[in-house]
Amino acid sequence: MAESYNICLDIGGTKVLGVVFNSKKEIVFRLKKKTKSGGDSSDNIEQLIINVVKELIDASGIKADKINAISAGAPGVINQETGVVLFSPNLPWRNYNIKKPIEKEFGCPFYIGNDVNVGVLGEYKYGAAKGYKNVVGLFVGTGMGGGLILNGELFTGNKFKAAEYGHMILDPEGPLCNCGQRGCLEAFSSKQGMSAYIRQQVSRGRKSSMAEAVENGVFKSKVLKNALAEGDSVAVEAVDRACHYLAVASGNLVNTFSPDVVVYGGGVIEAVGDIFLEKILSEVDRYCMPSIRETVEFKKAALGDDSILYGALSMIKK
Amino acid sequence: MAESYNICLDIGGTKVLGVVFNSKKEIVFRLKKKTKSGGDSSDNIEQLIINVVKELIDASGIKADKINAISAGAPGVINQETGVVLFSPNLPWRNYNIKKPIEKEFGCPFYIGNDVNVGVLGEYKYGAAKGYKNVVGLFVGTGMGGGLILNGELFTGNKFKAAEYGHMILDPEGPLCNCGQRGCLEAFSSKQGMSAYIRQQVSRGRKSSMAEAVENGVFKSKVLKNALAEGDSVAVEAVDRACHYLAVASGNLVNTFSPDVVVYGGGVIEAVGDIFLEKILSEVDRYCMPSIRETVEFKKAALGDDSILYGALSMIKK
Repeated sequence: MAESYNICLDIGGTKVLGVVFNSKKEIVFRLKKKTKSGGDSSDNIEQLIINVVKELIDASGIKADKINAISAGAPGVINQETGVVLFSPNLPWRNYNIKKPIEKEFGCPFYIGNDVNVGVLGEYKYGAAKGYKNVVGLFVGTGMGGGLILNGELFTGNKFKAAEYGHMILDPEGPLCNCGQRGCLEAFSSKQGMSAYIRQQVSRGRKSSMAEAVENGVFKSKVLKNALAEGDSVAVEAVDRACHYLAVASGNLVNTFSPDVVVYGGGVIEAVGDIFLEKILSEVDRYCMPSIRETVEFKKAALGDDSILYGALSMIKK
Repeated sequence: MAESYNICLDIGGTKVLGVVFNSKKEIVFRLKKKTKSGGDSSDNIEQLIINVVKELIDASGIKADKINAISAGAPGVINQETGVVLFSPNLPWRNYNIKKPIEKEFGCPFYIGNDVNVGVLGEYKYGAAKGYKNVVGLFVGTGMGGGLILNGELFTGNKFKAAEYGHMILDPEGPLCNCGQRGCLEAFSSKQGMSAYIRQQVSRGRKSSMAEAVENGVFKSKVLKNALAEGDSVAVEAVDRACHYLAVASGNLVNTFSPDVVVYGGGVIEAVGDIFLEKILSEVDRYCMPSIRETVEFKKAALGDDSILYGALSMIKK
């Protein structure tokens, strides 16, 4: 039998990561492409996906008729059964069926789901949560993403909007979140939350090597990694605070689900290494009911930046 | 075909409520019996259940051979598949198989599950949550109980310990909870939490008609109802505070599950009427993600004190 391939994409607000999987589920080719942010129409983003897939086909040398399926994770609320993007915060799609035009273009099935959901699915099928039944995923990035595997299935709730526990309120008097609420997990523990904290400390006259990196937005994970290596005290505080609230939120989620495992992933966790997990673990016993704590594990995502790509692969029906 | 009956029990720390259902799922007989609290051995509680069932049979006049099954809800962590009570806070059972002795005594199947889980199941099968797929139940009593119906099934997590969101931390600097943690939902919004607040205000010299009722423990729901009717300002404050944190917790749970409906039940909600739901509803929009808020409803339990009994009925396999 001739080899067949699957193309998987991680579609972000600023980049698309594309790979080719062979039938042994090995990544045999990779491509990364910047996207223009803002102002793009649906057609342009759709065109971008088409271009990336075409480039992957050309550059990898595989034949177009050897492509079994294309699958992607993207930010936003996505009906993964129909391929309709209901809403996406960073992409200009509203109630847009992205499935049909891509399938028409390439003549093979196209799957799409919410990026963090797909990432947790990747960890469940191929990574840190493999073999477990109930999984809570927490992905730390610019925002704070969540994904749930319950009784062995991705749980998406009513209209595919579940797992928004980045907006769990942990302190009603806490810092303002982008969502308009105060004291959400995201406001403490995401890149945005940590950046705001560092910016505030710098504005009070404190020194930090991250001052420039947070001046007009969020830091890059590598900058945080370096600052922690240097022992930058403002950066250390920001991470301590982020991990404290991640531990509280983890306790709340553990008490709510009695899951088998909590998996922490995303760009920050991947870049900074085990510091986050160690800090969270040093506190989390306080916030879990003791009898529930006994039967839950806490793990770092195993697939790193490839969680979403493997999750996309797992969505392909055959 | 001759009529057959099901006997259902709501086993509490201080009372057992027992009823007889006919095959039309109507309650044809009721019995309430006080239990001695503390110090009882497993045998004695087991004997109490046996006595209640025998009394129900005798007093209702149904014949023992017409009993199809017996089913019960009880506090604690219960493996509802095997009938093993793993842990019960108010009953002296640890890893005790209650199923076998009851089945042996009466020669019919016996089912048992966690009381709040069973109560939410009752609301799902016969009450306020009938026809929905994803249900979050919040039961306000001495403590704060939770129950989850996800994708149409009771969700119990690892080792039947899920839905302990009564111990969701909403303010890390909040009042001490019985569980040893600070600022749990239960510490604000349960009878215990409200009683502690009223006790504290009375100790500061404020007048309240509930002073005596909370002096050595928790108030009875009727006492709160009367105090609210009188406009007792300390009681009103305690309820406002309870509802504020119930609204925050409801928002967190709505964002986590994107459920179809949130159902509020338990003795306090039942006795006090619609005040709780109105107060919660007046605040809850603030704490839900707007897009998720659009597709969720908030309801008062419809079966009142009988939620657990109807839930127990629904656990009977045929």
